[in-house]
Amino acid sequence: MRVSELSQATGVPVPTIKYYLREGLLPRGETTTSPNQASYSDEHVTRLRLIRSLLDVGGLSVATVRDVLAAVDDPDTSLHDVLGRAVGTVTATGADADDEHHARARTRLAGLIDDRGWHVSPHAPAREAAVAALATIYRLGLENLDSLADVYAGAAEQVAEADLGSVVQVADRDRRVQTALVGTVVGDALFAALRRMAQEHTSAKHFPPAQDPEQR
Amino acid sequence: MRVSELSQATGVPVPTIKYYLREGLLPRGETTTSPNQASYSDEHVTRLRLIRSLLDVGGLSVATVRDVLAAVDDPDTSLHDVLGRAVGTVTATGADADDEHHARARTRLAGLIDDRGWHVSPHAPAREAAVAALATIYRLGLENLDSLADVYAGAAEQVAEADLGSVVQVADRDRRVQTALVGTVVGDALFAALRRMAQEHTSAKHFPPAQDPEQR
Repeated sequence: MRVSELSQATGVPVPTIKYYLREGLLPRGETTTSPNQASYSDEHVTRLRLIRSLLDVGGLSVATVRDVLAAVDDPDTSLHDVLGRAVGTVTATGADADDEHHARARTRLAGLIDDRGWHVSPHAPAREAAVAALATIYRLGLENLDSLADVYAGAAEQVAEADLGSVVQVADRDRRVQTALVGTVVGDALFAALRRMAQEHTSAKHFPPAQDPEQR
Repeated sequence: MRVSELSQATGVPVPTIKYYLREGLLPRGETTTSPNQASYSDEHVTRLRLIRSLLDVGGLSVATVRDVLAAVDDPDTSLHDVLGRAVGTVTATGADADDEHHARARTRLAGLIDDRGWHVSPHAPAREAAVAALATIYRLGLENLDSLADVYAGAAEQVAEADLGSVVQVADRDRRVQTALVGTVVGDALFAALRRMAQEHTSAKHFPPAQDPEQR
């Protein structure tokens, strides 16, 4: 199909498709006899949908998507490594000074990982992300949020077991990699949304909203 | 203190502080006898740290932070409403067409909420965010990720109970609101990081990384 048809099939505007081609996110189409006109396949449709999911729902940057998809496309990359790339999409945000709150957060996280018997690479980006989050809590003096980390870790374990279970089910390598990637990235958004709904439900139980006096 | 001292106390550059003042995130300092020089208090230090946490670690936009802080500063806003604002910081991303995948996602989410007995406002932004995530999974044909939603919802319930528990502990209204806000927003980042570490741990169990042949 032509680029205009690819656009129609996916709802992605042609200039955006051309941008993804230039940035190396989307492979070039087959060249045809007519110059300046490439031919795109169903695989391009699938890839374009994946790109949009990672960018829009997953909130990844174009550079991260390029990096992750390069690992996906390399048949020599082990599934563990692709998962590592997907896992690496969480990075510590904010350029905080490495202060006493970070030191405390580092100790706290090391203890938590030790308690749970987790094997986590010392250079895992998620470590820095967790340290940044904990350091924020300490810097703001919100001490009573500290104990949440243990509850979160327990819930994260259940989620991670289910995540991996859904990946293991899939036999085909490409499909398996895609499942792992989307499950990880879109899963963040799904969990955050479900947490908000559970919070609303729990909050209404603890703090009943003020009754509208106009309402009978 | 002067703006330069406020900058020193928080590590936030003076031009950035001036930007937050212009955008209405940070209240103006007390005017002093010398023109063009305002005086800032410890409350400005606290507020500035909160702003940075919400922007950097929480990944919120300046507009969202302004909106949330306005609710925090209004003593007439009930805690439930402030939580509602914090909860509203998750929004559906990506301007997807409202297609058959969305319809299916909506039905799936309604069933899940019903099964769990959650009370969730029909207009909760988190609903649309969850629908967008589920629709993405369906659009990509990754059917086996669908069942994750139930595991996530169970984990989200545990997390939300702990979240609310930490808020209830706090007596002071301002502190309580800050706890709820930071717990919700920074909590997303903390959970995502812990989930990645739990995934790494679980993945290494299921898919042992290739042994380096050079290594004994």
